[in-house]
Amino acid sequence: MMDTAMTFHRFHKDLPFTAEEYGRRLAATRAAMERAGLEALLVTDPSNMAWLTGYDGWSFYVHQGVIIQHDADPIWWGRLQDSNGAVRTVWMADDCVWGYADSFVQSTECHPMQDLAERLAYIGLDTARLGVEMENYYYSAKAHAALTAALPNAVLKDATALVNWQRGAKSDEEILFMRRAAMISEKIVDGLMERVEPGIPKNEVVAQVYVDALQGVDGHWGDYPAIVPLLPSGTDAAAPHLTWDGRPFSTGEATFFEISGCYRRYHAPLCRTIFLGKPDDTILRAEAALVEGLEAGLDVARAGARACDIAAALAAPLERAGIARSARCGYPIGLSYPPDWGERTISLRAEDQTVLQPGMTFHFMPGLWMEDWGLEITESILIREDGPAETFCNRPRKLYVKP
Amino acid sequence: MMDTAMTFHRFHKDLPFTAEEYGRRLAATRAAMERAGLEALLVTDPSNMAWLTGYDGWSFYVHQGVIIQHDADPIWWGRLQDSNGAVRTVWMADDCVWGYADSFVQSTECHPMQDLAERLAYIGLDTARLGVEMENYYYSAKAHAALTAALPNAVLKDATALVNWQRGAKSDEEILFMRRAAMISEKIVDGLMERVEPGIPKNEVVAQVYVDALQGVDGHWGDYPAIVPLLPSGTDAAAPHLTWDGRPFSTGEATFFEISGCYRRYHAPLCRTIFLGKPDDTILRAEAALVEGLEAGLDVARAGARACDIAAALAAPLERAGIARSARCGYPIGLSYPPDWGERTISLRAEDQTVLQPGMTFHFMPGLWMEDWGLEITESILIREDGPAETFCNRPRKLYVKP
Repeated sequence: MMDTAMTFHRFHKDLPFTAEEYGRRLAATRAAMERAGLEALLVTDPSNMAWLTGYDGWSFYVHQGVIIQHDADPIWWGRLQDSNGAVRTVWMADDCVWGYADSFVQSTECHPMQDLAERLAYIGLDTARLGVEMENYYYSAKAHAALTAALPNAVLKDATALVNWQRGAKSDEEILFMRRAAMISEKIVDGLMERVEPGIPKNEVVAQVYVDALQGVDGHWGDYPAIVPLLPSGTDAAAPHLTWDGRPFSTGEATFFEISGCYRRYHAPLCRTIFLGKPDDTILRAEAALVEGLEAGLDVARAGARACDIAAALAAPLERAGIARSARCGYPIGLSYPPDWGERTISLRAEDQTVLQPGMTFHFMPGLWMEDWGLEITESILIREDGPAETFCNRPRKLYVKP
Repeated sequence: MMDTAMTFHRFHKDLPFTAEEYGRRLAATRAAMERAGLEALLVTDPSNMAWLTGYDGWSFYVHQGVIIQHDADPIWWGRLQDSNGAVRTVWMADDCVWGYADSFVQSTECHPMQDLAERLAYIGLDTARLGVEMENYYYSAKAHAALTAALPNAVLKDATALVNWQRGAKSDEEILFMRRAAMISEKIVDGLMERVEPGIPKNEVVAQVYVDALQGVDGHWGDYPAIVPLLPSGTDAAAPHLTWDGRPFSTGEATFFEISGCYRRYHAPLCRTIFLGKPDDTILRAEAALVEGLEAGLDVARAGARACDIAAALAAPLERAGIARSARCGYPIGLSYPPDWGERTISLRAEDQTVLQPGMTFHFMPGLWMEDWGLEITESILIREDGPAETFCNRPRKLYVKP
């Protein structure tokens, strides 16, 4: 299926992965399609598109997708002007790149899915059992309605996360990319510890986070993370997803920093909290319980254990410390585009019995967001063949205090 | 409706706009709901949510929304942990903030829209004519299916862009924010002109773009833009949405820079192209035609003219120069969250007859993405009461050449 002697490429391509890697991914996806009874699959999640084809570009704000069939190379479909980016980034031949006219973009009179339906009919898929990713940022309610109306004889089936599940266990090539992302994460956290001081405005500190993130490490350039830095302070640290403003850091406040280095779209998030001044007993007790919980969780995060086992190991010391925590404590990570760096399959929580496999990677993320304070100490982890999980980063697992 | 004496707020809030401004926005939205026959509106577009309530946070990767009714304050609804951010950022009282349990997040067994449906029933909206934003990144096909199933007696009507259309003509308060964003855009472009040299890696230059963007100007801190910097070079500049890598800039290549400063979520994009070395006649002829087209477009961009008039004014000199261009040449701008800084209402193109009004703001964006080169010279513009459009930025409208 990747007979490069037969394919025509106008442009030199700097593909992130080998042909064998893309072949493995496509085979796994086709096997999952087979199990789900799908003749074809429309992939609209940009992370899934990139994982399967190499496509990379900030074009996901218009409708686009990749069509996967059992007996033909993937087809990239998107806005005509973005087909120029596709022929430069996907491994398939140029004739597997299809562009639709600009008049479809954000029109109230026609929808890009009407163009797609015509093309699907052209290749004989108008009566197919076609999988679509119903729960995805980039497959809107309107897109589904338009595609359903334009393909009256097809059977559209929900294939949410079908590809995401194939992404769970990482290859060695992917783990290498995550190690590079992790080195960048360490560099960012080191810079934060150095630069955060009372009186320094938050936006100035975030500017330097971007410098560390994009300069990269050891000659490996940094890519943009799928989530911007989050760094609420004091009572605002109760809110997990506040971004920055121009206010200065203050003595007597804890600030958590939720950041991730990114190498060619692969992430390794690392969160640490800095306290300026002398922390009170409440947060010190929370730190002790949280670190104990993290270490217990890392120890049970082994191949063959379940997602919920990690959550249970974390919960015990927190409960003993009287800390109520209802949110999940982690999710799979890897290749991602905004707005999320999670893979949206497994959740580390009591309800999730998924068995952990070697090569799976998670952000073990037991953030504490209490009523008027917050604490984040987290690790990106790799499930190994044997033994407890490996952490991608190697930084003190503690509350950082600057007296 | 904003009787602050009656409302309870636990936290100090740094609202970006006055109560009068939020009141104006809500009144305009309710009038549009009335015209559309809607008793209630579920707003899921994060830009619309922020515009109506002040809500700000990177939480749009999970389901959330704002419920607008005719006779009650807006209700913020989202993940429980994000309600901590909502009570800190919305103008409504704390009891207008509703959080759903974390077990709904990315679950395969239940959907957050089921929680919303129960709450809508509780306030008597289970039989309402309820508007939903069918064409939105953050209202998935699955969300619509789940909400429809959970509200069998409601009438869900497509209200795509109902709020976006109210955002078109900006208030003086908003224009002030865009002027600040524009100053940041100018600073970014000035920095690029200074720093881009043969041999400098792209990621290093983007790191400094972020420093300029986030440090801000004149004491106004910089926010994250809704789109990351785009800066393809040479033949890659044919592709409008490629991001960066670690390759150095080279002599003999044009690079376009598509960037925007951002002040409290308001944007003023500004694109310029830098040629290193001696540009050939093809690009110089294109530059001349493009600048002529921009100036013609600015001159017709007056209150009372139509969106298509700008497109026609631009097209004439390009056609005379033999440059075929099929993409729209602009879109409205203002408050935005990723993945797009456009407002997704008007398009500056031949098919769009929308009449321009004072206070409307556009990114006049006639990018040229040819087969093996590209050129971007653009302006963010304001439609005035009288006379031609004002440009938010004031930088030479030309191809920048560094010999």
